Amino acid sequence: MFYFGADYYPEHWPEERWIEDARLMANAGFNVVRMAEFAWAKMEMIEGKFDFDWLDRAIEVLSSSGIKVILGTPTASPPPWLMSKQQDLFLVDSDGVRQTYGLRREYCPNNPLYWIFTEKIVNRMAEHFKDNPAVIGWQIDNEFGDRCFCSICSTKFQKWLQKRYQTLEELNEKWGTIFWSHVYTEWSQIPVPLAILRSQNPGLGLDYRRFMSDTYRDYQKFQIDIIRHYCPSHFVTHNLMGFGYNQLNYYDNTADLDVVTWDNYLRMQWDMRSYIDPAKAALNHDTMRGLKKKNFWVMEQQSGGGGWEYVAVTPKPGELRLWTYQSIAHGADGIVYFRWRTSRTGTEQYWQGVLEHHGNPGRRYLEVLQVGKELSKIGDLIEGSQVHTRVAIMQSYDTRFAFQVQPNHPNFSYEKHILDIYKGFFHNNIPVEIISEKDPLEGYQVVVVPAMYILTEETARNLEIFVQSGGIVMFTPRTGVKDETNTVVNIKLPGLVANICGIEINEYVSMAVDEDNQVKFGLPELEEDFPTSVWADLITPKGAEVIAFHTMDFYTNQPAATINRCGKGKVIYIGVIGDNAFNVSIARVISNMAGIKPLMKTPPGVEVMERWKGNKRLLFVLNHLSETQEITLDGKYLDLINENQISGIISIAPLNVLILKELINKNI
Amino acid sequence: MFYFGADYYPEHWPEERWIEDARLMANAGFNVVRMAEFAWAKMEMIEGKFDFDWLDRAIEVLSSSGIKVILGTPTASPPPWLMSKQQDLFLVDSDGVRQTYGLRREYCPNNPLYWIFTEKIVNRMAEHFKDNPAVIGWQIDNEFGDRCFCSICSTKFQKWLQKRYQTLEELNEKWGTIFWSHVYTEWSQIPVPLAILRSQNPGLGLDYRRFMSDTYRDYQKFQIDIIRHYCPSHFVTHNLMGFGYNQLNYYDNTADLDVVTWDNYLRMQWDMRSYIDPAKAALNHDTMRGLKKKNFWVMEQQSGGGGWEYVAVTPKPGELRLWTYQSIAHGADGIVYFRWRTSRTGTEQYWQGVLEHHGNPGRRYLEVLQVGKELSKIGDLIEGSQVHTRVAIMQSYDTRFAFQVQPNHPNFSYEKHILDIYKGFFHNNIPVEIISEKDPLEGYQVVVVPAMYILTEETARNLEIFVQSGGIVMFTPRTGVKDETNTVVNIKLPGLVANICGIEINEYVSMAVDEDNQVKFGLPELEEDFPTSVWADLITPKGAEVIAFHTMDFYTNQPAATINRCGKGKVIYIGVIGDNAFNVSIARVISNMAGIKPLMKTPPGVEVMERWKGNKRLLFVLNHLSETQEITLDGKYLDLINENQISGIISIAPLNVLILKELINKNI
Amino acid sequence: MFYFGADYYPEHWPEERWIEDARLMANAGFNVVRMAEFAWAKMEMIEGKFDFDWLDRAIEVLSSSGIKVILGTPTASPPPWLMSKQQDLFLVDSDGVRQTYGLRREYCPNNPLYWIFTEKIVNRMAEHFKDNPAVIGWQIDNEFGDRCFCSICSTKFQKWLQKRYQTLEELNEKWGTIFWSHVYTEWSQIPVPLAILRSQNPGLGLDYRRFMSDTYRDYQKFQIDIIRHYCPSHFVTHNLMGFGYNQLNYYDNTADLDVVTWDNYLRMQWDMRSYIDPAKAALNHDTMRGLKKKNFWVMEQQSGGGGWEYVAVTPKPGELRLWTYQSIAHGADGIVYFRWRTSRTGTEQYWQGVLEHHGNPGRRYLEVLQVGKELSKIGDLIEGSQVHTRVAIMQSYDTRFAFQVQPNHPNFSYEKHILDIYKGFFHNNIPVEIISEKDPLEGYQVVVVPAMYILTEETARNLEIFVQSGGIVMFTPRTGVKDETNTVVNIKLPGLVANICGIEINEYVSMAVDEDNQVKFGLPELEEDFPTSVWADLITPKGAEVIAFHTMDFYTNQPAATINRCGKGKVIYIGVIGDNAFNVSIARVISNMAGIKPLMKTPPGVEVMERWKGNKRLLFVLNHLSETQEITLDGKYLDLINENQISGIISIAPLNVLILKELINKNI
Repeated sequence: MFYFGADYYPEHWPEERWIEDARLMANAGFNVVRMAEFAWAKMEMIEGKFDFDWLDRAIEVLSSSGIKVILGTPTASPPPWLMSKQQDLFLVDSDGVRQTYGLRREYCPNNPLYWIFTEKIVNRMAEHFKDNPAVIGWQIDNEFGDRCFCSICSTKFQKWLQKRYQTLEELNEKWGTIFWSHVYTEWSQIPVPLAILRSQNPGLGLDYRRFMSDTYRDYQKFQIDIIRHYCPSHFVTHNLMGFGYNQLNYYDNTADLDVVTWDNYLRMQWDMRSYIDPAKAALNHDTMRGLKKKNFWVMEQQSGGGGWEYVAVTPKPGELRLWTYQSIAHGADGIVYFRWRTSRTGTEQYWQGVLEHHGNPGRRYLEVLQVGKELSKIGDLIEGSQVHTRVAIMQSYDTRFAFQVQPNHPNFSYEKHILDIYKGFFHNNIPVEIISEKDPLEGYQVVVVPAMYILTEETARNLEIFVQSGGIVMFTPRTGVKDETNTVVNIKLPGLVANICGIEINEYVSMAVDEDNQVKFGLPELEEDFPTSVWADLITPKGAEVIAFHTMDFYTNQPAATINRCGKGKVIYIGVIGDNAFNVSIARVISNMAGIKPLMKTPPGVEVMERWKGNKRLLFVLNHLSETQEITLDGKYLDLINENQISGIISIAPLNVLILKELINKNI
Repeated sequence: MFYFGADYYPEHWPEERWIEDARLMANAGFNVVRMAEFAWAKMEMIEGKFDFDWLDRAIEVLSSSGIKVILGTPTASPPPWLMSKQQDLFLVDSDGVRQTYGLRREYCPNNPLYWIFTEKIVNRMAEHFKDNPAVIGWQIDNEFGDRCFCSICSTKFQKWLQKRYQTLEELNEKWGTIFWSHVYTEWSQIPVPLAILRSQNPGLGLDYRRFMSDTYRDYQKFQIDIIRHYCPSHFVTHNLMGFGYNQLNYYDNTADLDVVTWDNYLRMQWDMRSYIDPAKAALNHDTMRGLKKKNFWVMEQQSGGGGWEYVAVTPKPGELRLWTYQSIAHGADGIVYFRWRTSRTGTEQYWQGVLEHHGNPGRRYLEVLQVGKELSKIGDLIEGSQVHTRVAIMQSYDTRFAFQVQPNHPNFSYEKHILDIYKGFFHNNIPVEIISEKDPLEGYQVVVVPAMYILTEETARNLEIFVQSGGIVMFTPRTGVKDETNTVVNIKLPGLVANICGIEINEYVSMAVDEDNQVKFGLPELEEDFPTSVWADLITPKGAEVIAFHTMDFYTNQPAATINRCGKGKVIYIGVIGDNAFNVSIARVISNMAGIKPLMKTPPGVEVMERWKGNKRLLFVLNHLSETQEITLDGKYLDLINENQISGIISIAPLNVLILKELINKNI
Repeated sequence: MFYFGADYYPEHWPEERWIEDARLMANAGFNVVRMAEFAWAKMEMIEGKFDFDWLDRAIEVLSSSGIKVILGTPTASPPPWLMSKQQDLFLVDSDGVRQTYGLRREYCPNNPLYWIFTEKIVNRMAEHFKDNPAVIGWQIDNEFGDRCFCSICSTKFQKWLQKRYQTLEELNEKWGTIFWSHVYTEWSQIPVPLAILRSQNPGLGLDYRRFMSDTYRDYQKFQIDIIRHYCPSHFVTHNLMGFGYNQLNYYDNTADLDVVTWDNYLRMQWDMRSYIDPAKAALNHDTMRGLKKKNFWVMEQQSGGGGWEYVAVTPKPGELRLWTYQSIAHGADGIVYFRWRTSRTGTEQYWQGVLEHHGNPGRRYLEVLQVGKELSKIGDLIEGSQVHTRVAIMQSYDTRFAFQVQPNHPNFSYEKHILDIYKGFFHNNIPVEIISEKDPLEGYQVVVVPAMYILTEETARNLEIFVQSGGIVMFTPRTGVKDETNTVVNIKLPGLVANICGIEINEYVSMAVDEDNQVKFGLPELEEDFPTSVWADLITPKGAEVIAFHTMDFYTNQPAATINRCGKGKVIYIGVIGDNAFNVSIARVISNMAGIKPLMKTPPGVEVMERWKGNKRLLFVLNHLSETQEITLDGKYLDLINENQISGIISIAPLNVLILKELINKNI
């Protein structure tokens, strides 16, 4: 069953309205809602007095309309009576300022009292709802992640370090604390990296981020264990925040979950510009799918502009539907719109639901209803289908954390760099999986490793094995700079992979923000010049073949990119940061090398993805542009939404979607 | 008598200088000074030891030269001995940081000890000066308004809420605290909206601002009662800060005063650009006059650049005089220059007085002296004259406070929106009154209601009565969104006035910051296109006639503005934010509709205002430009400054002023 | 002996590496290192247990290779065991936030406990190393200067004030505390100027900066006395931060040192733009030389990009060498590169040393080695040579501090103004000395006094004597505004020097940031127009001759600059802020007037400096450009680096340096 529904807050509305809500939901084809995630105060208004009756009634109303329920544990929004118990319950931010009551997520995740009250509410919820047949799963808390810098966390961090390093001698050695006399002689001397420091020991900076990520994993596990105890047949999830969120190690922190779900917003008040990059959402999906290498849910699929103080830029007609299908195209097995009806009160008064404040169906409801109708036709075909990928882009949260400590260049962003590399494949309509530095590499033909700044021996070894066995690997600048304690390696770059690259970097250039350079490629299939910026590695080949040269400044004619045969495979090293055309070309060349063809050739702005069910495939063609586009099909397809056969040159309307079933499968 | 003078700080200068100051003042035609407002340390250098002798002598010197005195209570600048008594005396800002000693206005307005010392000094002053015949009035404190977030204020806020809502159930219901589980079960749990929250419950945010405004009203009233007890024949005022100041509800907070005075600065260090918008000062004046619907004083009329760390952009020759006459044209009955002589020490070393630091008369003195001479000729004609208006623009401090919590759009500012609407009339030379949402509407022909975001049933009812009786009302976007607890209404927009507008807004578009749109009007007198930005309401007429359409994007051809007949009147709804030309056109059309003609047609940059005394009127023609302008008079006038008759086409020199007495009154 | 070496941290590297380091150093011609400055934790890992053995061994290794040692006292980087003793040890910043452990320079310089531990470590070091023949000198701490705002400092400030003013009456009078009732009646009431005040009493603001500067002088003196007690034959220094550093009064604070050393960085992460202004480094050198009117060392000469979070823009090949010779050209007698080898750990992982992280010699080592070889040829000629100057630019740290309190204009910076004036001479190849307002003026022909805002009677008198005796003085706007308590003078500007200028400023114009003006000169040798901005003095000549007029706005044709004969000399007053061409012209005119000729005429970007040894001179020709330049020599020279005779038109390669020995000295 394809799950389709909304996040619903019955506690915000008069009980007599619930039936109408359920009716409108059923009418739109909804079969699931998430509830209760922020309802702690409604479930435990007074300490120790639990009330689930209202929620029982709400579930009853919904399940009568055929709607299943995912329950959220409400720990992201503790009630005032709890938070007024002690100041220590509140998180302290990196400025050393303690949060006060009045928003959400204000708790310190290491506070022991908070764990006690967490246990009580989660226990009682799980026990109460374990046998309710309408309940199918649980979401733990909501959007984990803010870092705390309080004294409780500080002490816990010291213990975490003690476990990791065993002795202070080892910690001092690994962090290189002799620099500026930071040699710790008691564990209790070790500080947390408050913002006032401006700069910090890189080892400490990285470990603190790891520790805070582990903290949330522990707190989540604490809740999961309770749920699993009572409700062994329910699935457990947490709603993540896509590729862009960089405070948690999502690989580690989803290991304990049954399924990954995430919150997919393309229009929020924090970016009021008109342009939406469809590749960003695509990367989000592919990252979320890559966490467990399997399909996921969108637990909050945008149902309108997302705003707090501002009303976000209004999504145009068709965008909600387009974005929903993009989610599905990339592997969503469930779509839950956030939220059912726009709240009339509270911080999120302008976070638009499927219904407007007044509760009457409008344009957004009708658009969602259209999707619901379409899904009722094609949901069965989608169910059980998977996304297949032959290209992986490798990322690492350790590297992210390390770049947070030292971004290396004001115009460099690791996340943007990965997005740019990703867009090279995206614009070629080549599906990509985002994997971690610890993931197995079998099954991929190409593994791209952008700026793997923290490079462990294990990862280097895995990559070497992959290449030796015939894989193609591509590296970019700032790879292999550090070991896992965030210490710069003692050898020439790219460090542990210099050997498989067949190169040595004897000098690198950090470019001025008002300067750029150029590379010239010398490959038969790529002879162009491309502008470069930010960084230039000056490569000395040690066996590798040079495929591109810098063309300006004192390093004119010095090697800028190389390719090296290594066992049955190849290793490409790109020593520059290029533009979009550069990334598209590189992705084309490298895919070609691996015999990987685009799913379809389309005009820019038209995205193609596929899902496979056995040997049958569904093509999703998504027009992200506001103008009609023409595409040429390579065979006969069944247009599932419009229920007709199509082939040859066809049109796709602005912001429209085609879901095509291949009638003759040429790609197998 | 027209009051004309300066703010004088005799305590800053050697006593032997006072006579020369008095001589120079009298020479310039001064008849009033304000004194003592920051002189607490001089009047009570040691706790409980009061010394008013020096002030008696200063008053004596001045009154010997025919100069009257307004005394300021000195509570805006407590001396160190007082503030060092307890930390709690200091205000805590929205970052939670407690002020320290060294500026002014550093006190918490709810601190009980501060009230005790306030009572002592005000009592002693009032008692001492009650019978001094030179003293004519009092100014309470100085420029009230900074919000405090300390624990004393927090507790007071909780009491204020208890009084307002009676029960927590009511408060929780009104604020919708069920959102994110903020349900308060003890009054003491309710927080103040510190900046660290980033976002806040809109109900709490609005009420806190109301509470802080009430706090200053109470503190002011506390002082007023003492003054009135001793000095029943003296007037009491406070110096306000014009339209732009948005921390206090100036309607409520001037109710206890006899007369409104305000501080009129056009050149301060906080804006070092060259262009001065004369409409801004005009709006300030019209707002201040509208507070009590009667004339006001300018208690601080700019006498040079206003600077602290920077020397503000130097006013050009003629500007001080021009700005003085603009004050008078808009209803000033007193002009008090700030300050007499530039201070040689302290924060305001670069807040330029009539005299420079060295005390010798210079350009600024001579310009003020010229005004003094002119006023000695025309003061009698001005005295007792009033500004008449037929157009009102309605504003609301509740709406301001609500927009502070949620600005709705990064490019929207309620204050700027009102200014823009105001400028439409200003550039048509149509006098406007700025009124509150609670003011009676009788006597106006047109009431413009821009973005009345918080719209009460009472206001909606008053507007309906006004329209039914023949008035014309114009609304703009974001009207009627909220009720008075800052909760979004449960009905379609424009909410409570949808009915009199004859429309329903089924969708609105928050526009991207890099996008705009257009409206096309279809009125015989207005067929133009205008660019629009920020916001677009898509209007469904329910009886109203459509007068303009959007012309771009997915809502092309959807109604953008309507007009509705309602009783004997008309209601216009404008669903867009237009540019200056748009606002000028709309003001012209709407005034025409009401039979209101411009006072005079002038080139842009030449302002015309009028004051009426019985059925005689004085025209003020103000050339705000640096080039000579020509205007065409519609009859014969007496030029009061130059004492000659003029008519036909005349020239007005750069930054010059004409004060014209109509010889034949055609407008009655 | 010319000292040439690096800052070396043997404690960061395995002891077995030291010999290789020493070998590479000796190979590059190094004869000195600085060590131990951040090694407190290595020397006293446990409180009271001192270990200097490792340092003895390191010194032994180095001295075996002929390398001498400067030892740094390690007080800039206290170890964790010390700082965890009490919170009070940590500095409090201007936001009132107490530093935490994890960077360096985190201590409060007035903390008594810190002084106790300082005494112990410095005592033990001095005692231990006093007889080590390899040790030649000491550096106290590292880059003094951050201001502390803690309660200990607050109390010390009150005592400092008591000493300065004796009575509160005097302090209140001098600061003008009657303004806003700040009259202090107890010393303990006087606050420190925390940032939350936004603005502050100018007297207090100036005195607090003086006090903090004195604090560091006292703390430095405390250490110097210990060193001198044990090591009377060693020199004592501190590494300063050039002209740009403005938190300390470098004239006062170097009075106790034997020699000035400073840290010369042109490429740091805080400015990632490509352009480097060679005049800035030149001004730094000339300021440092001017502190004691004698040669200095560069204790940290840039050996690569200087970065923490960012990798700074990479210096191009030749730049390290060019910048080294620029240091020498301006008076460096010692060059110590920072640092020997890039650290693999800690905050400064990207502060590039002569060697890269991996320790193998690369481009930077080879460039330094080239310099070493060249110096081995020419070092003897440089040794004992001095820079001669006939032009002085006078600066004042009191004026800097006062401008920090009140910058006067958003586009005015005293430091930039001095740099601009300096560049006028720099581009004319006329050597300049930067002197203090208290320095004797004998020996100069021209003294330029830019914006001497705080002007004491003593300085005014010295300038008058200088002029009377035949000197030429030039003033610029904002001169003479304040007395030494930061009170505005009671007379017309330029205050105490109005008389020798023969002028009176009756009005000044602070210009809008979007406006400019123009001056027209009327001198035979200077008839041009120049754009002006920021400020315009309208000058009334009182005996002076007008040499330039404003050409726009209401002050068109008013005098903008004057010259006045005074005794045997001349006083020029420039009442505007001009552009670069203006400053170059003025410098040319004024130098001409004094009979001072450029060292050489060169294309822009080619700098010429000279050092004199007796009556022999060495010319340094520095091509700061990336293109080859041609220059015309005015005689025959010996090219010392290339060891050939040259004359006539010669080429100088990009970023290259010529060191020329004059064969016939025409300039004597």
